[in-house]
Amino acid sequence: MDTGMIIIGERLNSTNKAARTAIESRNASFVHDMARKQADAGAMYIDLNAGMFVEDEPERLEWLTRTAQEAVDVPLSLDSPNAGALERALKVVRTKPIINSITLERERYDSVLPLVLEYGTGVIALCMDDNGMPETTEERVAIADRLISGLTAKGVDISDIFIDPMVRPIGTGSHYGTVVLETIRRVRSEFPEVHITCGLSNISFGLPARKVINQAFMIAAMTCGLDCAILDPLDRKLMAFIYATEALLGKDDFCVNYLTKYREGLIDLQ
Amino acid sequence: MDTGMIIIGERLNSTNKAARTAIESRNASFVHDMARKQADAGAMYIDLNAGMFVEDEPERLEWLTRTAQEAVDVPLSLDSPNAGALERALKVVRTKPIINSITLERERYDSVLPLVLEYGTGVIALCMDDNGMPETTEERVAIADRLISGLTAKGVDISDIFIDPMVRPIGTGSHYGTVVLETIRRVRSEFPEVHITCGLSNISFGLPARKVINQAFMIAAMTCGLDCAILDPLDRKLMAFIYATEALLGKDDFCVNYLTKYREGLIDLQ
Repeated sequence: MDTGMIIIGERLNSTNKAARTAIESRNASFVHDMARKQADAGAMYIDLNAGMFVEDEPERLEWLTRTAQEAVDVPLSLDSPNAGALERALKVVRTKPIINSITLERERYDSVLPLVLEYGTGVIALCMDDNGMPETTEERVAIADRLISGLTAKGVDISDIFIDPMVRPIGTGSHYGTVVLETIRRVRSEFPEVHITCGLSNISFGLPARKVINQAFMIAAMTCGLDCAILDPLDRKLMAFIYATEALLGKDDFCVNYLTKYREGLIDLQ
Repeated sequence: MDTGMIIIGERLNSTNKAARTAIESRNASFVHDMARKQADAGAMYIDLNAGMFVEDEPERLEWLTRTAQEAVDVPLSLDSPNAGALERALKVVRTKPIINSITLERERYDSVLPLVLEYGTGVIALCMDDNGMPETTEERVAIADRLISGLTAKGVDISDIFIDPMVRPIGTGSHYGTVVLETIRRVRSEFPEVHITCGLSNISFGLPARKVINQAFMIAAMTCGLDCAILDPLDRKLMAFIYATEALLGKDDFCVNYLTKYREGLIDLQ
């Protein structure tokens, strides 16, 4: 039986206003509290992003990494395209992290790959190359193939790779939902051992009642083979749907986890 | 582009206490009202079931059919395994109905098939034979193949066939979710033109917070190729997820229907 979904908590991201303010003012207790809350709610990794601080991202990401580790033992997802910032954080990180992220863009690939190898990290690999974001399922699957073969050839274990098919909003193209779902299905069938992740909320960009679409998309994506997501673990409704969908997909023997979460009051319709 | 989901409204079923009381007391206004409400909420068929009245099901089903037709023009789903009851209803039905249902059980098949042919109805075909309810995906797909080849050989149009894979509760077997989802996926890929339907709620039998599981299951099943469901169209949350999932699956160009439903106040998180 598969293990369940790998949840990466998204709340300590500098694009989030409260998080940005906390990072700016070096508010350690906010970072401690938000890291703990996400871990307690089921996050298996805590994503850390200081990308809004263009002047001093490396120093900010290092501080964020040190500070989060003061509160939690769960591993971190170091969220930056900037090798310099990643290296500052990697030097102080205590538990095997994920680098978020690498792509097939030549410069980014060549600058991030050495860090993945030197520090033996997991890595989120975005289906994107120097031609930009791919349009079709075929282009995405081809890039995923090249990322997986390239990384594993360098010695990265396939179970340390998290393929992100790159979600585009259905509001900008009615076919983008099926494109990403079909990409997930094909990568899953081709590479049973690779992790497949994505940021959920981009799917609903520009549409109203986004949570309804995000919830439906997460369930649909899990059905196609998604086994990891970057999301808000404090969103109880979203987490309840994860437990229900794991039970539906045979990843929760005797529905034990679903029943436990229900008894803990974590599954309701409110 | 596919058309969206075919919704069969389940509320006029004698296993439902309010409906049973109304049928028993020949409360026509209840039947009119419930038929109208379901049609207004998006039901494309109204299911009629008088099966709890073992003594006089034929007469009850005929009354229910006449009465529902006084209120709505949407076609009916005549819900009985009893050929005698079905024939009474078929004699008075005005619009091409669905017979709900036939199976591969020899006696039922031989008694219901002539009615499908004589009255030119659609038919829900359950993946079940004289060996009872199948255990595996392979058994279900094999029965679906035999139902489709047998019915089409007699002249039934494949687009008039609604395959029901027979849902079993995940609480009684952790694998039953994947069994039914995989059956839907395989029947859909083998027979692009057939309809695939199911009763949703059986999946969550015996578990708490059933609506959460039912909503997740419907979204997962649509993702695998379900294009029809027997459900409560007055359940706004369930209907909102249908509109969102149709948009995700590329069955709602430019999300026009989703946006319309949102403007009508039909998509919310309450």
